[in-house]
Amino acid sequence: MYASFMRNPNPTTLLCVHPGMRDTLTGVDPTSTPGVAQREDVSARTAENVARIGELAQVLWADNRFSLLVVLQGMDTAGKDGVIRHVFAGIDPQGCRVTSFKRPSVEELSHDYLWRVHAACPPRGSVGVFNRSHYEDVGVVRVHKRISREICEARYRQINEFERHLVENGTRVVKFFLHISKAEQKERLLTRIRDPLKGWKMEEADLAERRRWRAYMKVYSEAIEHCSTNAAPWYVIPADKKWYRDFAVSAIVRGVLEGMKLRVPVKRLDRTRLERALQGR
Amino acid sequence: MYASFMRNPNPTTLLCVHPGMRDTLTGVDPTSTPGVAQREDVSARTAENVARIGELAQVLWADNRFSLLVVLQGMDTAGKDGVIRHVFAGIDPQGCRVTSFKRPSVEELSHDYLWRVHAACPPRGSVGVFNRSHYEDVGVVRVHKRISREICEARYRQINEFERHLVENGTRVVKFFLHISKAEQKERLLTRIRDPLKGWKMEEADLAERRRWRAYMKVYSEAIEHCSTNAAPWYVIPADKKWYRDFAVSAIVRGVLEGMKLRVPVKRLDRTRLERALQGR
Repeated sequence: MYASFMRNPNPTTLLCVHPGMRDTLTGVDPTSTPGVAQREDVSARTAENVARIGELAQVLWADNRFSLLVVLQGMDTAGKDGVIRHVFAGIDPQGCRVTSFKRPSVEELSHDYLWRVHAACPPRGSVGVFNRSHYEDVGVVRVHKRISREICEARYRQINEFERHLVENGTRVVKFFLHISKAEQKERLLTRIRDPLKGWKMEEADLAERRRWRAYMKVYSEAIEHCSTNAAPWYVIPADKKWYRDFAVSAIVRGVLEGMKLRVPVKRLDRTRLERALQGR
Repeated sequence: MYASFMRNPNPTTLLCVHPGMRDTLTGVDPTSTPGVAQREDVSARTAENVARIGELAQVLWADNRFSLLVVLQGMDTAGKDGVIRHVFAGIDPQGCRVTSFKRPSVEELSHDYLWRVHAACPPRGSVGVFNRSHYEDVGVVRVHKRISREICEARYRQINEFERHLVENGTRVVKFFLHISKAEQKERLLTRIRDPLKGWKMEEADLAERRRWRAYMKVYSEAIEHCSTNAAPWYVIPADKKWYRDFAVSAIVRGVLEGMKLRVPVKRLDRTRLERALQGR
């Protein structure tokens, strides 16, 4: 049984955060590859998943009943941009919109924190990918103690209610935490600093957040544990190995789309009506 | 005691829909003027309320911690535009934005029903007035049976949660149902039809909804009863008499703004910091 499981690992089951789970980050080794022994076992399947996601997104568009919202969170260099490039590249841009939530603008700050998030939600028929999200509003702001524990707990509830509202109104919500180790981040930051295309825009502040690594893990695991619901589950993806990260995310997204029972609508032409319209009625 | 109450009627107490109340529309006579014997008793106070609302909106702007959302609902000709003209006219346009929710656009329809509503919510420091609102999504669509009872009840909950979210994040929410009688509407429609500036845009469809009067009363009283919360109360305003309508709405809005304990912030300059900045540090 274990052997067949190894041949057909299901990241949806393996990596999902179920209500009541604890140590959702500290308990997961970022270098691990749950359910997969080696890269060669899944590389073809990752490519297949990505292609299938592109096809399913077309059906999602034609079906026009549902939308899909994918939330990506993770420390700096965790691979959010990489996942967008590798997993969602196969989708027709008309049916896929990526929103990067940066430091809020003055206008955004003068609204409640879910305002800009709701505005960016995908319309029916399309896929929305959030590069960072409202989880920063219970993440980075919590690490920097800009909101109290009470406000943070109210936000968990508000977020759960908001996401349930989306789901109940036709948007499927899937959330990924790309979980890298502090050591892996160091390697990636070094690579970035040395990259002439990326090094110039780095600031000392980008490195400062590393010192708060444990605080970030604590805050994010708490948010994940409070906000992984049946309606809108969190998945913690071990992300030190990029190939595993892309395999896992693509398999889960494919599974979600397949589970939506999408169908291309069949339009029956009402000939009588069309003929009347042609006759100028 | 009753005499002093008559001299100082408090529409906030008299007209608020408390949780558990029933017959919130059928139980209210649209021609009545609760707490007020005659027009002359309040006309000066209405003018005073309107002026005070204009002043308080300036403090709301300077304070910049809260915002105020006023929702106006009512049958056609109930006086939503009239209230906007008479009660909110004193506010600096910079601090007040009116949003009329018409039939949703194709883009809006491709989102959940709260999407366009959230996007139109007032930023901190300002007043937002909704001429119709998300209550159409449990109102007209319910009368026309475009959503089931189950979906409608889910929406009541979603709306309560959404409004609580707004309130918890600094937006005060007040909702008014301008309650006119069917007979009064007939008079107003006749006036409108004969008005050269308004008659031309009327359609037979505008009159058709009159036939569904009882269904509308049923559906709106149900929505009001499910969605009048301590966080975001509904007020049913007898609105056949325009002077009473404007008095009641202005008194309630004034009361809400006064209850927010607004203050103009005092900025203390940090001289040392400013000097350092000037010295190029």
